[in-house]
Amino acid sequence: VTVTANSNSANVYDRSYWISINDEIDAHLKQAIPIRPPLTVFEPMHHLTFDAQQTTAPALCIAACELVGGNRDQAMAAASALRLMHAAAFTHEHIILAGSRARIGHSFGPNIELLTGDGMIPFGLELLATSDDPTQNNSERILRVIIEITQAMGSQGMLDGQYNQVQYGQSDYIDHVCKKKEGRFYACAGAVGAILGGGTEEEIEKLRRYGLHVGLVQGVLSNWFERKEKGSMEKVLNELGNLALKELEGFDQGNVLAISSLVETNFSNA
Amino acid sequence: VTVTANSNSANVYDRSYWISINDEIDAHLKQAIPIRPPLTVFEPMHHLTFDAQQTTAPALCIAACELVGGNRDQAMAAASALRLMHAAAFTHEHIILAGSRARIGHSFGPNIELLTGDGMIPFGLELLATSDDPTQNNSERILRVIIEITQAMGSQGMLDGQYNQVQYGQSDYIDHVCKKKEGRFYACAGAVGAILGGGTEEEIEKLRRYGLHVGLVQGVLSNWFERKEKGSMEKVLNELGNLALKELEGFDQGNVLAISSLVETNFSNA
Repeated sequence: VTVTANSNSANVYDRSYWISINDEIDAHLKQAIPIRPPLTVFEPMHHLTFDAQQTTAPALCIAACELVGGNRDQAMAAASALRLMHAAAFTHEHIILAGSRARIGHSFGPNIELLTGDGMIPFGLELLATSDDPTQNNSERILRVIIEITQAMGSQGMLDGQYNQVQYGQSDYIDHVCKKKEGRFYACAGAVGAILGGGTEEEIEKLRRYGLHVGLVQGVLSNWFERKEKGSMEKVLNELGNLALKELEGFDQGNVLAISSLVETNFSNA
Repeated sequence: VTVTANSNSANVYDRSYWISINDEIDAHLKQAIPIRPPLTVFEPMHHLTFDAQQTTAPALCIAACELVGGNRDQAMAAASALRLMHAAAFTHEHIILAGSRARIGHSFGPNIELLTGDGMIPFGLELLATSDDPTQNNSERILRVIIEITQAMGSQGMLDGQYNQVQYGQSDYIDHVCKKKEGRFYACAGAVGAILGGGTEEEIEKLRRYGLHVGLVQGVLSNWFERKEKGSMEKVLNELGNLALKELEGFDQGNVLAISSLVETNFSNA
């Protein structure tokens, strides 16, 4: 296989890579959240999961797993759990922010948003815990992943970032909000994928840092204009992108092509 | 050891048993939730955990573990996780019900209640997952417990009950609300304690059903008067208590004394 320097063809390849991953996660989740009784519970869960703001963190989890030599299936339950966690956080944020700005067009009231979000968190972790295959002897890996995800969603991560967002408003947005929310979430996705794919501790930490910078790029992209930040967004994104790519240096450069395109894709979307 | 039929002395013994368990769970949780930075996050979590409505389900989890021959320590993390799950559900219910009735006297607004509850759920599961001791080779047991707890809190349990409570009001309260909420939660506590204590599948299912009936007793006790139910509460409680005690018949009757007093204690509190 010859890797050409033609950025167009690389882009075509890379986009199809992410699309195929996201399609598989969607299919997995659609099977896991059937519209079944109690309908009053599962119908909102279905809608609020698939209508939530898109995130590429679950796809990053799969890509990290593949980069360290794992199979896509090994990270599918964790990627689905990450989608559910993200949808739960997004749904609950909507309750808090609904007063100032409405971001999703669904017809569920705040009580259903509250209860459904509460259902998504344990359901995501249940999916992950039930993915344990005793014949694979990977219970300890799955427990480690549960710890990673609960920490990223909890008091030192997502929750802290959401609190800062509600409480402090504009100041130090990147450090106090993006780093705790998108940064920590993508970092978790990278680390979790590497853990499940059987990566070394060094690979796990590299992909955690790669995820952190990719997450910060996401946070900046989604908030810069709305928050009217001063300075050049291009410059900040370039710095973060370079920090991200630096973490991929130790890996086989042929295999890195797919996962590294996540940073390029972000730029091209900006 | 002679077991006397003197109900007073039995009561003294049994109360001290539950008090000692609850004290140990409290101590474990106070150590796990220190008031540390970020204070804005941990201070509300500390208060909302310890100010939440009392529940005996975590103590039942420990008692079930001891009944099947396990040590108290083996179920302590799970009992703490159950306390946090219950506090999270209680805190979020307060947001929904605050309009009609205020049940807790704390000064945190709904945004903090929402975010703190969101933090308690993953934190409880994190405590449980980190309790895994690789030298004990019990990862699979802990994963099984995580599945039990996530299911009891999720769409087929607590969430369904809360939804019914908000949606349907009075009708079929015991079946639609108590069974899903208190019933399912206490059933989970009994099963989880038996799993962690190394009980057989038969013992696990007996203690699950024991928990179900104890939970229903709790649900009836806390809602009967407020809901102005018709009929005799005494009669309903007696039936549930007898169903509960029937599940303990197969166990060694000397060891059953402590755990069975949970039903008596409920009656004497009524």
